[in-house]
Amino acid sequence: MKILVTGGIGFIGSHTCVELLKEGYEIVIIDNLYNSQLDVVDKINAITKKQVSFYEGDCCDADFMDSIFQKHKIDAVIHFAGYKAVGESVKKPLEYYRNNMQSTFVLCDVMRSHNCKNLVFSSSATVYGDPQRIPIDEECRLGPTTNPYGTTKLYIEQVLKDLYMSDHDWNILLLRYFNPIGAHESGLIGESPNDIPNNLMPYIVKVAAKELPYLHVFGNDYETPDGTGVRDYIHVVDLAKGHVCAIDKLLREHIGVDAVNLGTGKGYSVLDVVHAFASANQVEVPYQIDPRRPGDIAVCYADPQKAKQLLGWQAEKNLEDMCRDSWHYLTVTHAKK
Amino acid sequence: MKILVTGGIGFIGSHTCVELLKEGYEIVIIDNLYNSQLDVVDKINAITKKQVSFYEGDCCDADFMDSIFQKHKIDAVIHFAGYKAVGESVKKPLEYYRNNMQSTFVLCDVMRSHNCKNLVFSSSATVYGDPQRIPIDEECRLGPTTNPYGTTKLYIEQVLKDLYMSDHDWNILLLRYFNPIGAHESGLIGESPNDIPNNLMPYIVKVAAKELPYLHVFGNDYETPDGTGVRDYIHVVDLAKGHVCAIDKLLREHIGVDAVNLGTGKGYSVLDVVHAFASANQVEVPYQIDPRRPGDIAVCYADPQKAKQLLGWQAEKNLEDMCRDSWHYLTVTHAKK
Repeated sequence: MKILVTGGIGFIGSHTCVELLKEGYEIVIIDNLYNSQLDVVDKINAITKKQVSFYEGDCCDADFMDSIFQKHKIDAVIHFAGYKAVGESVKKPLEYYRNNMQSTFVLCDVMRSHNCKNLVFSSSATVYGDPQRIPIDEECRLGPTTNPYGTTKLYIEQVLKDLYMSDHDWNILLLRYFNPIGAHESGLIGESPNDIPNNLMPYIVKVAAKELPYLHVFGNDYETPDGTGVRDYIHVVDLAKGHVCAIDKLLREHIGVDAVNLGTGKGYSVLDVVHAFASANQVEVPYQIDPRRPGDIAVCYADPQKAKQLLGWQAEKNLEDMCRDSWHYLTVTHAKK
Repeated sequence: MKILVTGGIGFIGSHTCVELLKEGYEIVIIDNLYNSQLDVVDKINAITKKQVSFYEGDCCDADFMDSIFQKHKIDAVIHFAGYKAVGESVKKPLEYYRNNMQSTFVLCDVMRSHNCKNLVFSSSATVYGDPQRIPIDEECRLGPTTNPYGTTKLYIEQVLKDLYMSDHDWNILLLRYFNPIGAHESGLIGESPNDIPNNLMPYIVKVAAKELPYLHVFGNDYETPDGTGVRDYIHVVDLAKGHVCAIDKLLREHIGVDAVNLGTGKGYSVLDVVHAFASANQVEVPYQIDPRRPGDIAVCYADPQKAKQLLGWQAEKNLEDMCRDSWHYLTVTHAKK
């Protein structure tokens, strides 16, 4: 079976490609290199000892997309491509809406014209906005979202639901990610944020590597055991395996359209992660307590039961694995420089 | 001052062009003729004794849009262009989302690049979904919408709000229309639905003209005085004048982004309209009571106070005017065939 992976050399995309190849799927990767590195293709090949088909191009380009489906008989698509920086989305909403939505419209149109209607969409727990309840299950109220990035995910979910309502041949899984961190155990692929990272783990890694002086911890007066915010961190390889289970499911059964959380169900605080990172890697992570950031919530973690029941998937790696593999990726990357 | 009117020869667009010209604005009309007739340009010229600039083209076409702004120094835009059939949107959601959203993305991008940031957006009372309270004021909860057409309006409103948040130079009015009917008193322009109309007034007109055998009245057991659904019908010329007031406002003041209902504040039932039409035009409108349609609500009318306060606008024409002008348009159109 042949899977098209859009945005396939980004952080989650590249790990998913590795797991798909390990499970015997053929894959076709497309990526516009807007926020990714071409050498990741070689690294995917190196890890899996296979040769993937890679095409540089943009999902918003209908002719390019059609050419991919002309060249390859695609059985299912995993749609990762999209802008993903929360802060940037506030400054550039038009670019975020346009890129994330138009790429999905073009993809679906081309899929339909080639009669390929199996789709896994890369959504996010941000669709829940300020969550109705914790742990967050898939029946929680959606929105209001707190930034345009999250809004694009929410809107695309609705477009795909309406698409299914108009044509029951579609077979769609909306995967709502919690907080992916970690890296492949090889150290060859991982998260490479440009500039100063917005997310906790890439920031911790840069602090531990002494590229940044200290970590900003935003608020230590939340109603949590140590006062810092609690999130559901999930190892990116676990997340990648969740995508393989989703593809397995779609190719085995017609489910219509359904949404599934991909999280561990465990919440860790900022300081839990800091301490786990320092301990796992025997490094120092200096930090400073700063005021709360507007829009941040105290606690957010998944109810992962539906993923287990529907996809037979659950996260297996623990916080120590995530911390170790995040740091390992940096040390391998630095050693090569 | 020069106003670009997208979708400017459609039903509401053409009446708005007439009112803009009457108030001394220069206008540039663009329309892709997807759901409109080219001869409406001549009719606008005939009514106003002016010559408008018309360009056939699509708002989704960035090069076309840029060429318009190259040729003309545009001071403000009224964005009518979009697919608008509720029922069709359920069957073709991808086309509705893609066309309505992409045209807005392209328009805003081109406006920004030409430093034109005054925009009136053609929204709809459908953004309120099943309304939180009656009469509907602008602070009522938005959504959930009941069909993809309404969802495109809701989503575009949010995109425009986020756009303003990212760049306070934008100056945007979101006009939420209730139920526009009627036609210009000349009988030269009006609503010309293709095939069988979905809305009440075009259907009544076709029944009165004996092109359809009888009107379907969906439900007479609602909690309303006569049991049939109540809506806020507004004469399209009043609605058009509301757009002129909105443009006046944007060119006079910087208001940021704001939403305004355009309705009369009066609710009429289906049978009120049937009887008013029969009486005003001395014609018969046979009807049949059918079961309720899923998704229909009992009562929907506007609180029009904000439009009065903010724009100095209120509807002036009554139900008899609407019925007379709707029928007049048909008789003039038929006489010419």
